Amino acid sequence: MAKFDPETLRWTQDGLVPAIAQDAEGGQVLMMAWMNRESLDATLATGNVTYWSRSRQELWRKGATSGHVQKLVSLAIDCDRDCILMQVTQVGAACHTGRRHCFYTEIRDGQEVVTEDPL
Amino acid sequence: MAKFDPETLRWTQDGLVPAIAQDAEGGQVLMMAWMNRESLDATLATGNVTYWSRSRQELWRKGATSGHVQKLVSLAIDCDRDCILMQVTQVGAACHTGRRHCFYTEIRDGQEVVTEDPL
Repeated sequence: MAKFDPETLRWTQDGLVPAIAQDAEGGQVLMMAWMNRESLDATLATGNVTYWSRSRQELWRKGATSGHVQKLVSLAIDCDRDCILMQVTQVGAACHTGRRHCFYTEIRDGQEVVTEDPL
Repeated sequence: MAKFDPETLRWTQDGLVPAIAQDAEGGQVLMMAWMNRESLDATLATGNVTYWSRSRQELWRKGATSGHVQKLVSLAIDCDRDCILMQVTQVGAACHTGRRHCFYTEIRDGQEVVTEDPL
């Protein structure tokens, strides 16, 4: 074991790393968003998954307005320290479209197929 | 259904999108890497998952040298069209360290804990 120093992550030039949220029970990949140092610290400190909104340029505590929070179960980094994978307990829909997860558009034989309806 | 046009993805300024590979059977998230337009086309056309190596700046057909190929089972894009999720059949280790997957370093109480050994 070694002490985890967030500075050792390979942040982009904008100070971000991609973070994947996976349903801790079913294993479904719910979404991918971005974290900066502040949002990673907040996620680890509070257990409430917090991203960095690139469009709004602000801290984005998932579910703060919708109630669709993500409770952190565990957090891992990858071998080259430039990606985060979280196991989470998702309340309601992870996706802003009201779907359980964001990856509902499958590419099949060159066509887009919507595989899931909103909750 | 609508025809899938890769140009409608939200590529980064460098012409890339993050692509997540998930084990089609066990549901484990194996790795995250990047694709450019050419690698996405190759992945869909051949069924052999092909990334873009940012460090080598070349097309990276996963497993071409190691034999640890990823066979594409299905491919989806997310709601804002800037991330790809693939279900794959992984031969051997997805990670260059010889581990099944890349996310073997868990952060627990501020410590790094290695949760998996090489195969």
